[in-house]
Amino acid sequence: MALQAAGRKSLVDTVVDQLRAQLAAGEWRVGERIPTEHALAEQLQVGRNTVREAVRVLVHAGMLRSRQGEGTFVVSKADPGDIMRGVQRAGVRDVLELRIALETEAARLAALRHEPADLERMAAALEAQTRLQDQEGQPASGSLELYADHDIEFHMAVVEAAHNTALTATYGWFASSVREALVSSLGDHEMPKVLHGDHRAVLDAIASGDPEAAERAARELLARPKQAVEALLAEL
Amino acid sequence: MALQAAGRKSLVDTVVDQLRAQLAAGEWRVGERIPTEHALAEQLQVGRNTVREAVRVLVHAGMLRSRQGEGTFVVSKADPGDIMRGVQRAGVRDVLELRIALETEAARLAALRHEPADLERMAAALEAQTRLQDQEGQPASGSLELYADHDIEFHMAVVEAAHNTALTATYGWFASSVREALVSSLGDHEMPKVLHGDHRAVLDAIASGDPEAAERAARELLARPKQAVEALLAEL
Repeated sequence: MALQAAGRKSLVDTVVDQLRAQLAAGEWRVGERIPTEHALAEQLQVGRNTVREAVRVLVHAGMLRSRQGEGTFVVSKADPGDIMRGVQRAGVRDVLELRIALETEAARLAALRHEPADLERMAAALEAQTRLQDQEGQPASGSLELYADHDIEFHMAVVEAAHNTALTATYGWFASSVREALVSSLGDHEMPKVLHGDHRAVLDAIASGDPEAAERAARELLARPKQAVEALLAEL
Repeated sequence: MALQAAGRKSLVDTVVDQLRAQLAAGEWRVGERIPTEHALAEQLQVGRNTVREAVRVLVHAGMLRSRQGEGTFVVSKADPGDIMRGVQRAGVRDVLELRIALETEAARLAALRHEPADLERMAAALEAQTRLQDQEGQPASGSLELYADHDIEFHMAVVEAAHNTALTATYGWFASSVREALVSSLGDHEMPKVLHGDHRAVLDAIASGDPEAAERAARELLARPKQAVEALLAEL
């Protein structure tokens, strides 16, 4: 099989796609060693440098791992980049529901596992927000970006108080990707006002050590934006 | 600044790390165009081919996007590969809790949004498992891998019945990565027996359209392995 560069794609991209398809199809199992550069170059009728570059791409993507002197091994058949691109293409409602899934479970676990420093971090984020509020308790004009940063800091503190590396890693990606959406929704007068008290209720429930109450408070906090998004979608 | 290849890393890997650090530090905003290949090559004192290869790696990783004739733009400051490697390094308990977060919320939404085909798919997966069971209701020896596939198919069907692309994309990664763990735990006699009735309860609760009951059933289903894992950890 001789691969050729197609359209705007370079030959390396074509080899990447080919290897990714072979991984997805299960040609090699997770943990198994893939053929040598030499064998792959022969199989695909391309140069070894092209194979080396393509393998490098898949190592960085987290699908392969190279061990010096031992070869290259399969880490995952799924492409994390593809998954994240799928999440990025998802609508606002879908991403909000994913946040609800992660944050309600994190709040539940945080009630059981928080340390004093976790509560201090949440309280500090809320105090920083308070200092940016106008008389109506809304972010003062000109402070939206900073207000959003404190908001994300509060939610990250809740998630990290669960002391679960898998939850933290997954949620961490959202923290950077929802920021833009948050800034524009804070400035959008059709969106419901964020109530400071709702955040405080999450902190209090976690501090009380009651997992059910913490989950409920976290769900309440995100219920308002979810209802607003659903109302907007229903109007379309 | 002249970059040099360090230890086992190639120069391309070093440039990838450098660009990734600049992205993480917010040197360019999401949506912004990064400097040209020529400018980056000059800045880092490396060849243009090296920059081109490094940019390709980050495009495939989902952090950058190239638009023909327009340049290369920032998609995400976080590296999806890093996030997934973080999840992969997490312990069994952490990954199980992440599954619980995603599956309980999916069950809740599935109760509200499922279509007839979703219920049929869940039922088919359970029937296929039943056919592989021995007289004690456990997977017959030699059928563990196939049994695990049907189990994953059931859980994927629950998640996809939520009709949320962000949940499906995130959960889809787990489906491939938990499979190995599932096969070994099915064959491990210290792990609790999977009760078929627990799966059926999730299907029935979703079919009844009651989100609270569906969430409860999904949580019950995963409570048993979670307790077993925590008991094993407590013994360490």
